[in-house]
Amino acid sequence: MSRFEQNLEKYAELAVKVGLNVQDGQTLVIMTPVSCAAFARKVSLKAYEAGAKNVILDWEDDEAKAIRLRYAPEEALNEYPMKWKADGFEELAREGAAFIQIVAPNTEILKGIDPERIGKSNKAAALARNGFLNYLRNNKINWNIVAVPTPEWSAQIFPGLDEETRMAKLWEQIFKLTRVDAEDPVEAWQQHIDTLVHKMNYLNEKRYVKLHYRAPGTDLTIELPKKHQWVSAGSTADNGVFYVPNLPTEEVFTMPHKTGVNGTVRSTKPLSYNGSLIDGFSFTFENGKIIKATAEQGEDILDKLLDMDEGARYLGEVALVPNDSPISNSNLIYYNTLFDENASCHLAIGNAYPFTLEGGTSLSKEELEAQGSNSSITHVDFMIGSAELDIDGITEDGTREPLFRNGNWV
Amino acid sequence: MSRFEQNLEKYAELAVKVGLNVQDGQTLVIMTPVSCAAFARKVSLKAYEAGAKNVILDWEDDEAKAIRLRYAPEEALNEYPMKWKADGFEELAREGAAFIQIVAPNTEILKGIDPERIGKSNKAAALARNGFLNYLRNNKINWNIVAVPTPEWSAQIFPGLDEETRMAKLWEQIFKLTRVDAEDPVEAWQQHIDTLVHKMNYLNEKRYVKLHYRAPGTDLTIELPKKHQWVSAGSTADNGVFYVPNLPTEEVFTMPHKTGVNGTVRSTKPLSYNGSLIDGFSFTFENGKIIKATAEQGEDILDKLLDMDEGARYLGEVALVPNDSPISNSNLIYYNTLFDENASCHLAIGNAYPFTLEGGTSLSKEELEAQGSNSSITHVDFMIGSAELDIDGITEDGTREPLFRNGNWV
Repeated sequence: MSRFEQNLEKYAELAVKVGLNVQDGQTLVIMTPVSCAAFARKVSLKAYEAGAKNVILDWEDDEAKAIRLRYAPEEALNEYPMKWKADGFEELAREGAAFIQIVAPNTEILKGIDPERIGKSNKAAALARNGFLNYLRNNKINWNIVAVPTPEWSAQIFPGLDEETRMAKLWEQIFKLTRVDAEDPVEAWQQHIDTLVHKMNYLNEKRYVKLHYRAPGTDLTIELPKKHQWVSAGSTADNGVFYVPNLPTEEVFTMPHKTGVNGTVRSTKPLSYNGSLIDGFSFTFENGKIIKATAEQGEDILDKLLDMDEGARYLGEVALVPNDSPISNSNLIYYNTLFDENASCHLAIGNAYPFTLEGGTSLSKEELEAQGSNSSITHVDFMIGSAELDIDGITEDGTREPLFRNGNWV
Repeated sequence: MSRFEQNLEKYAELAVKVGLNVQDGQTLVIMTPVSCAAFARKVSLKAYEAGAKNVILDWEDDEAKAIRLRYAPEEALNEYPMKWKADGFEELAREGAAFIQIVAPNTEILKGIDPERIGKSNKAAALARNGFLNYLRNNKINWNIVAVPTPEWSAQIFPGLDEETRMAKLWEQIFKLTRVDAEDPVEAWQQHIDTLVHKMNYLNEKRYVKLHYRAPGTDLTIELPKKHQWVSAGSTADNGVFYVPNLPTEEVFTMPHKTGVNGTVRSTKPLSYNGSLIDGFSFTFENGKIIKATAEQGEDILDKLLDMDEGARYLGEVALVPNDSPISNSNLIYYNTLFDENASCHLAIGNAYPFTLEGGTSLSKEELEAQGSNSSITHVDFMIGSAELDIDGITEDGTREPLFRNGNWV
């Protein structure tokens, strides 16, 4: 077996054992692009080896999606024609299945398609899949996301290189950033998780009431709910399984107070959203609500996203990532949230994770909102970290403590 | 556009316009192997151009299926983990969706897997999908099957050739056999349908009560139900759409009387059944029931098939195809029913098509059985035609008329 093949095996195994932590007798659903078939099959095999009962492969295809977005009649886009699948997935999640999403971003493919049509289709899908996705967002079951290179994605990151070279380079990066190239990746991950948990515990003891962000184009104050909980790397799902949803992960995150966000923030990396690229954007907040949004690229898609529902104009996540994280140090833009969010402090518009509030997963939607938690059918991360970002933590008595300077932990 | 690309376009269009006859506003489900993604996308585009409202791509993968059959725990194989999908498809069919199955056979992939495990999985899938498949079998909606070459399949048909050459040769054959290489394939199909309809009308006027088959290893009498209907090429589905389920098609077929089959019949071509190969097999019938089955290859898989339910041991279809059909004249074995059945007279074990009985589609299961129609969760064609096959038709007054001599229409 070549070194590459060995790493591929280790990557699939890492996703199954550390990312998902698939349990004996558990069913696993693999959501994968058809272009990642070879890797999806490897994950499937590793899952059976780990004791999975059934592995269900659910295939998707960006090219077919683009054909639909271009040619389906207008009224069809307001429907999600696979509601039966969304309901089936919700049922599988209820019965305790784990889910893994393999991502292979391709932001070229939707270029030139009417944003109005894309927005309709995105909204219909978000509504239809909301019940299912809540099982993941609310930490009810173990799930995971991993990325797999494609010719198109690697061309975006390494423009100008021939396909073989750029695919090899992107695989090498992914193996490095996910610690697959460590002698014992599972052990390397244990150490990494310990480091993140240390930061998390520190922040949870501090009980900051506000964070204040300053950077070029950014002057933003974010209030944190009284019972906010910082979370890192892994979580224990309601089914008792400790899992690490994102490979890689470098973040420590919590929820902002829905109505306690004021000021302006400027994005520092492009955002790839459901296949569309949004870049150079700024939000201005007043009492939590985005009252102004501009973008140098993809502003129409951004507007559709913000209009998806009421909660799409409020924040749902605050995440701290040092600027000298391994991903950031690779000096590459990945055009994919899984990587870019772990290279950079970020925020998310939309739904807040109930598990980032003490006792939050057992609260009703109304009880969550009363404590400052936002709710929405969407949740989209965007990057605001840079070497010029300073963050202060403000304690209950008004003391201002430097938390980040020049993009890194103080 | 190259000549090959042009033919590919024409093939996709033929499937949509002649095979399916997709209606304005109709939803289409494309069931396709991931290995046929490029062709599936073409069909999707042609369907939207023909006015389809939604095109749903449902992907499947033989390699992932083989992993499951090898590694899933025994008890998992008795379940069909995608019942939600089978139910979703049944609902789509009820609401009037059309379905197309793209096939790319690969009988190498299941080699060496325990037939017991394959049998369990096949049965669970057949049970779970029975409601959905009845919409197709009972002619309730318009559906179609087309084949697409894969490296594995082309290697089976053209062993020893390099991949590029054998793929090109197989595509060429398919374009020829489906009349895609005609200047106007739609017009060529209209003529072909007329020829088949002429044969069909002839047989329907004859009202034979029995057919008698003689060939090496074969001496078989098949009684036909009083109200049997010969059917050819295309049918009008319950939704009023005239469609041609198989591309290619050369057959004229009806149902046998369930308990009126006696004697022995020997297969003349290998049978590719759900990825397994069964070859050199013989059935002995007594009052319709297969009381003895032997096979030179795949006998264990054949036994599982016959044990699937009670109806799997009785016939459900009798089809007449002349030995000098274009497919037969290609002198190739396709290891795929879609082609091999149209090169050869054939029979099917399992479920009979209600539309091959006068007024059959409005009869209950019990009423159908009372008229001699077999019912089963399975329906599998097998080939019995050859240049040595003679068939006589026996009329109600006992007159014996030669119908086929040396494999061809008299």
